[in-house]
Amino acid sequence: MSPASDKRDPGEPFPYYDGDIALQGELFPPAAPANGRAALVVHEADGIGGNVRRHCHDLASRGYFAMAADMHGGGQPLKGEAMANALQRFREEPDLVRGRVDAGVEALQRISGVDLSDSAAIGFCFGGFAALELARSGAPIAAVASFHGLLSTARKAKIGQVKARVAVYTGARDPLVPAQDLGTFQQEMDAADADWQLAIYGNALHSFTNKDVDALGDPRMAYDERAHHSSWSAMLGFFDQSLGLATPR
Amino acid sequence: MSPASDKRDPGEPFPYYDGDIALQGELFPPAAPANGRAALVVHEADGIGGNVRRHCHDLASRGYFAMAADMHGGGQPLKGEAMANALQRFREEPDLVRGRVDAGVEALQRISGVDLSDSAAIGFCFGGFAALELARSGAPIAAVASFHGLLSTARKAKIGQVKARVAVYTGARDPLVPAQDLGTFQQEMDAADADWQLAIYGNALHSFTNKDVDALGDPRMAYDERAHHSSWSAMLGFFDQSLGLATPR
Repeated sequence: MSPASDKRDPGEPFPYYDGDIALQGELFPPAAPANGRAALVVHEADGIGGNVRRHCHDLASRGYFAMAADMHGGGQPLKGEAMANALQRFREEPDLVRGRVDAGVEALQRISGVDLSDSAAIGFCFGGFAALELARSGAPIAAVASFHGLLSTARKAKIGQVKARVAVYTGARDPLVPAQDLGTFQQEMDAADADWQLAIYGNALHSFTNKDVDALGDPRMAYDERAHHSSWSAMLGFFDQSLGLATPR
Repeated sequence: MSPASDKRDPGEPFPYYDGDIALQGELFPPAAPANGRAALVVHEADGIGGNVRRHCHDLASRGYFAMAADMHGGGQPLKGEAMANALQRFREEPDLVRGRVDAGVEALQRISGVDLSDSAAIGFCFGGFAALELARSGAPIAAVASFHGLLSTARKAKIGQVKARVAVYTGARDPLVPAQDLGTFQQEMDAADADWQLAIYGNALHSFTNKDVDALGDPRMAYDERAHHSSWSAMLGFFDQSLGLATPR
């Protein structure tokens, strides 16, 4: 199955909690012989939608146990001021965003039975930022991957803190992730002695993995099939090397 | 077969010419059902050796028709002053290096019968530079990939000139490819309106794909298994998307 697939049906409803906050994730059990791996997929600014579901289906079709995280609560996408306020809090409060993603990781681990050493967290846009915050928190997950995610943080990683292998896929023309942020991010990861890699796709704007984004008419964003396929296949190879290192693939 | 394979037997001797210069390449016909693709593999500064042969075997094991190019002539690796002089000429004379690589591409096309739209050129260190020079020349090959190759050039690409898709894989700590060169290269590719991507591997030094390099004791260079595997699998995915676009894979 190619990441270009249009399959976007919701997964199985999956309620979980971050403390007292009720979250409504979606589960996508393996749709092929299970590969013994699990992946949490974190949504863009608004909430779980077609882009997240397409990628969850793709992972499930490869044998992954995939789960779409719900960051806002109740499984309801936000918009306008409510969305902006929620993002601002997540951006400013590392404990909040890290705890919220981690709740998803724990829920996925519980339901899938998959060990963290065989698991990854990925995200798109805001979700990419959230996945990186999980890595910065020192979570003992095998790998994280960010697609056109924000790279700046309110709390930089300290040396030795990042346990996960980190992969970042970004567009060279993404106005939300300027070249300066790429440099700062690399310095942060180097200073933290993290295992990181960063792929830059020429011509790609923000949201290059999202086939629906062109409909928004936002000049900062565009679907880019080549960058999408290159980054997705790079991530799959990266996971092949990073998950289940006890039994190298 | 993993790129970590140690298979390094020479390929079939394959003489070809760049004008009057006799070159001695090596052929690695498909060692699996042919995938209809061909790849030229350009050596490091010295000449065809274990690193080039390992990667040629890997490509052949995946169904590629691979060929190790001979850039210096006679199939003889150079060293010391002779090597330094040859490199300086190639670095300073774009027509020389471009013509020399192109001779390999033409020879490979002739013997394999594979169309340029299904072919790629890759290279390591100096060979990565040579592959990029081929792209800058406007060669109608589908893709080029450079592994820890030098990114600067004596003749920058002009707008519309680069026909090949370009992928660069580089180490964040490679002293031969400093961050400044990455920026200049991106600007060049953007100005040329090329289809490019650039992956940076944290911690990786120069020659990170070469399992033999640690024996040299050169502090600028080190084998990096993770960067090697990540970059090689990213390249394979990139070729899956770039070669044979008439019949998209």
